[in-house]
Amino acid sequence: MNKNIMITSNFWSRYRNLVRTEMIPYQWDVLNDIAKITIERERNDSSIPNEKSHAIENFKIAAGRSLGTHYGWTFQDSDVYKWLEAVAYSLREKMDPELEKKALEVIDLIAEAQEPDGYLDTFYSILGLEHRYKRLAGSHELYCMGHFIEAAVAYYEATGNEKVLTVAKKCADNVDENFGPEEGKILGYDGHEEIEIGLLRLYHVTSEERYLKLAKFFLMERGKHPDFFKEQAKVYEGPNALNGIEDMPDTYFQNHAPIKDQATAEGHAVRVVYMCTALADLAATTGDKGLLEICKRLWDNITTKRMFITGGIGSTVIGESFTLDYDLPNDTMYCETCAAIGLMFFAKQMLRIEHDAKYADVMERALYNCALAGMALDGKHFFYVNPLEVNPLKSKKDPTKSHVKPVRPAWLGCACCPPNLARMITSLDDYIYTVDGDTVYTNLYIASESTFDLADGNISIIQETDSPWDDNVRILVSNDSASEKAIAFRYPYWADGLSVTVNNSLIQPKTDDGYVYIDIAANSESNVELVFEVNIRKYHANTSVSEDIGKVAIGRGPFIYCLEEVDNGKQLAALSIPKDANFSYKWNGDILNGVGIIEANGARIDNNNADLYFVGEERCTSTKLKFIPYYAWANRGENEMLVWVREVTDRLNID
Amino acid sequence: MNKNIMITSNFWSRYRNLVRTEMIPYQWDVLNDIAKITIERERNDSSIPNEKSHAIENFKIAAGRSLGTHYGWTFQDSDVYKWLEAVAYSLREKMDPELEKKALEVIDLIAEAQEPDGYLDTFYSILGLEHRYKRLAGSHELYCMGHFIEAAVAYYEATGNEKVLTVAKKCADNVDENFGPEEGKILGYDGHEEIEIGLLRLYHVTSEERYLKLAKFFLMERGKHPDFFKEQAKVYEGPNALNGIEDMPDTYFQNHAPIKDQATAEGHAVRVVYMCTALADLAATTGDKGLLEICKRLWDNITTKRMFITGGIGSTVIGESFTLDYDLPNDTMYCETCAAIGLMFFAKQMLRIEHDAKYADVMERALYNCALAGMALDGKHFFYVNPLEVNPLKSKKDPTKSHVKPVRPAWLGCACCPPNLARMITSLDDYIYTVDGDTVYTNLYIASESTFDLADGNISIIQETDSPWDDNVRILVSNDSASEKAIAFRYPYWADGLSVTVNNSLIQPKTDDGYVYIDIAANSESNVELVFEVNIRKYHANTSVSEDIGKVAIGRGPFIYCLEEVDNGKQLAALSIPKDANFSYKWNGDILNGVGIIEANGARIDNNNADLYFVGEERCTSTKLKFIPYYAWANRGENEMLVWVREVTDRLNID
Repeated sequence: MNKNIMITSNFWSRYRNLVRTEMIPYQWDVLNDIAKITIERERNDSSIPNEKSHAIENFKIAAGRSLGTHYGWTFQDSDVYKWLEAVAYSLREKMDPELEKKALEVIDLIAEAQEPDGYLDTFYSILGLEHRYKRLAGSHELYCMGHFIEAAVAYYEATGNEKVLTVAKKCADNVDENFGPEEGKILGYDGHEEIEIGLLRLYHVTSEERYLKLAKFFLMERGKHPDFFKEQAKVYEGPNALNGIEDMPDTYFQNHAPIKDQATAEGHAVRVVYMCTALADLAATTGDKGLLEICKRLWDNITTKRMFITGGIGSTVIGESFTLDYDLPNDTMYCETCAAIGLMFFAKQMLRIEHDAKYADVMERALYNCALAGMALDGKHFFYVNPLEVNPLKSKKDPTKSHVKPVRPAWLGCACCPPNLARMITSLDDYIYTVDGDTVYTNLYIASESTFDLADGNISIIQETDSPWDDNVRILVSNDSASEKAIAFRYPYWADGLSVTVNNSLIQPKTDDGYVYIDIAANSESNVELVFEVNIRKYHANTSVSEDIGKVAIGRGPFIYCLEEVDNGKQLAALSIPKDANFSYKWNGDILNGVGIIEANGARIDNNNADLYFVGEERCTSTKLKFIPYYAWANRGENEMLVWVREVTDRLNID
Repeated sequence: MNKNIMITSNFWSRYRNLVRTEMIPYQWDVLNDIAKITIERERNDSSIPNEKSHAIENFKIAAGRSLGTHYGWTFQDSDVYKWLEAVAYSLREKMDPELEKKALEVIDLIAEAQEPDGYLDTFYSILGLEHRYKRLAGSHELYCMGHFIEAAVAYYEATGNEKVLTVAKKCADNVDENFGPEEGKILGYDGHEEIEIGLLRLYHVTSEERYLKLAKFFLMERGKHPDFFKEQAKVYEGPNALNGIEDMPDTYFQNHAPIKDQATAEGHAVRVVYMCTALADLAATTGDKGLLEICKRLWDNITTKRMFITGGIGSTVIGESFTLDYDLPNDTMYCETCAAIGLMFFAKQMLRIEHDAKYADVMERALYNCALAGMALDGKHFFYVNPLEVNPLKSKKDPTKSHVKPVRPAWLGCACCPPNLARMITSLDDYIYTVDGDTVYTNLYIASESTFDLADGNISIIQETDSPWDDNVRILVSNDSASEKAIAFRYPYWADGLSVTVNNSLIQPKTDDGYVYIDIAANSESNVELVFEVNIRKYHANTSVSEDIGKVAIGRGPFIYCLEEVDNGKQLAALSIPKDANFSYKWNGDILNGVGIIEANGARIDNNNADLYFVGEERCTSTKLKFIPYYAWANRGENEMLVWVREVTDRLNID
């Protein structure tokens, strides 16, 4: 099935242009160490390398073009690969000869850095190939190769470049020669899942069964050898590959039990969702029901018990990890940008298997909130951690919160997030629809023009909408095929009602698992108009989330909103919303590149002149609350921010 | 001035007997590695030694009586010294030949472990004397010697034992020979303040000016050489003396600025209050107004901006440190038992200088809440960290809260707190009164019988009271001296009124800085009766404490109260107190060795069956709230606990 999707949305075109014209060139300069920026450590940890990126230079050294040694993380190579993947999607959207030239240069460089047997990893090519594959807990060799394979497949698909695919296959073949259940091969896996995703993508484009088999091997073997990393570490004599990381709990690596026995999402959040993405891809590809059940179990655990309302995941900085059900602290959490993006990956794969809107709901939640908050409106500053409550003074002076940055740095010592955003945004067209047989499922409402080549002809869909701001979507569906087709529209969780008009007639369409189905006769056109009832919503959290009890989060459409100090003054925690508050919504094109603003009457406690502890009446004043969409916070200087606001019954004792 | 104070209080006699009959023998067994217990690490940190104490064995090895090597922290010796100090106070209260025998054996052992030149530290005596005094950031040599000197002075004062004082003077003389501004001496100080306290105590008992001078040198030199620890570390070649600790921020060691320029309490909380204790002693001893100003500044910063309502201090586990003004997180804080005890030390010294009840108020707050919570009612289990909000599941599964234990361990890898409690409780008689000239200040209401030898005769005071539970104190003052004397009574912050009767006549006494003054004529007796108006108090916190906004803490008398799961069910955070709640107070002699229980009507939110996030009405039910005094929590099994409870205007939507 071929498809062609062109995003026309104002909201997303700005972002995609920004990535193409600003972010990709900017990241190129960073990877080449010519950007004039300060690289910040993502938390107080003096072991984080932050002098430079050196990522391209590492390849030049490995390729023999430069002298010198490796600098940076063991996974520094992946920054280049994710950049290349973003370039691939960007070229797919719009050819740009100058950018293509850079990409081809990088592909040549990578090919030169590849060892004759296909092995590809600058860290060990520079520091000692004899130590390769011998400390997989922290070496990230397979992780990096997985990212390269993803980039190569994307580049091949976008441009038809055979060279990059050849390098990728050679690389995958090296992995295949070294890992597996066969005698003499390594019965193990990488500390950080990713190779599995890459191998499956390579399988999809090459149809070579061995890549599918190898991906399955890595997934199914995981957790069967909890001592694997420690045993490797004991005898390792090579360069420091995050030595000591093998002492992290087994859960950190999802290595505590075979995946089939994992009932909850444990450990490093990005690793979990990367693992789940590959698992769901494997389930979708093979139709294996057992695998699907594991995917569903982990999906439910994450999204119904361990996910912040912004779609962020990872409740603690220690191990960047999940902790336990309903433990969702707003000011110490991790909510890494990459983890929200990984959750989107997972959702996208689940949508291939089950046509249930809950997957798209979460995908959209993560996209418009946690993931999008990961970059500044200028496309040149990035959050690693996406908090739901920030006091800049605490970030600076409370070491427990050193990871909670109040403004986005220009680059990070661990730079996984910025290029992950670049590749996600440039490939956003891949997330809008799922096609299954004769049905096209609409997951995201994003203005776009698309054509799908189905078995017996084309179906083309034009979405016209100002979504995510607007409440209606006009869709022109043209079925140019020889049989009836169906188009399914997601009925999102944030809509309180939906009216569907087809060719100007109001209809009551069939609805199933959150999708509204409309049949489109062969060789016909239909004008579909969806009008959602979009209200400002006050979300409560389940009582088990102790941090959110007595509080509400405000949302409208796919956006979760927040209070910022610049609009509401200091001490946001002192603000409250009355239960009977009147909310109003207004578009403001003049700030933050245009956002919908929510206002409400509220109250403010002011006992600032009191003793530290006192008995007696609290002082309270009435005030106006002004909410902006969460993704747009921290674009107007350093300030406090708050998502969950106290809700009060009334405003007693207001002066 | 000699004094003789015998505590007769039921409340405190139980504790003091417990320390003498259970805690001291138990700690002896632990120090000798014969107690059958599991030593727990106080947080997830594999570098914490927890196989055994080995503290006495270290001395035996240093003394040449045993073979082997040092085990434990660089400050392991101090556990023995604090035990010995507690024994001294205990013998002062009640001679016990068997206990005295153990103490004399320990003193002999310490004397044998002392080097010929007076140096005393088993770590370097065993591992290499040539490295001594060369890595003071983490070596704790002076810290340990300071503790020994404190113990020695206490033992000498209690029993007249000259040997221990001789060992202490020899030890102090060694420090004096090695440190100071003179050519050839070390211009530096210990990473952990304590020697200063010891030297001042030695000065008080010996009147040898050089000890006063040396204490002053250490205090005044501190922070003048921020690079001192790093420079020592650079060239150090000895055994691992917490190597790497010198990379902590300068504030950790109070080494960021000379003390005179320190406006706020920064870094490791115990170190800060130990430093302040010595500084206040020096100010009281010398009458130096400049020093007093520094003490007052730091006191005010700690107690009006950085102290939890329980008297706990230290807002973060990272560096066990202060963070910033009003940063008082209830579930991730540190609130080390030792820090609360240190705050009492500081208060006691301040009371020598200024007759202001605020010092005694804080001393009492720390005593009856954070410090007392540090031990179980059985005297054999101890908290290092004293949280204000605990969910046992989070302590176990959220690594950010691994330091927040839900039940008291039998012993801790870092065992500073248990023996600190022992010495504080056994010396509690020293905290009740301050004598200044002809006035005796009553700081704590503790039933006791006391005699003070003043210049021209005795004054004796009998306190009869069931305080801390009761609201009245009957005092018989007998002035057997030749001149008029005054007795001053603290008017505590928790009393809403006070009536004073002298010899059955109600009087309106002079009140100044929180003390009520009553003159007692020469050679006369007076019957004073104080009746406090003691109400159940709902405390609010200053708005700057974001964690406590919209919440109240319940207190009565010196006690802060808390909710426990055993009385109130799970999900304590879901409970709330209506603004108009009715509170009742009742003594219950049957639980927790007898406590006053507070009950109130309350409400409970129950959205447990809801989605993780939902729109709509919250479910709420009415319930009874049952509060117990904070110090007594965690004595009925592992469970949730909460101090700050949400306050709501009413109980709308109650089923």
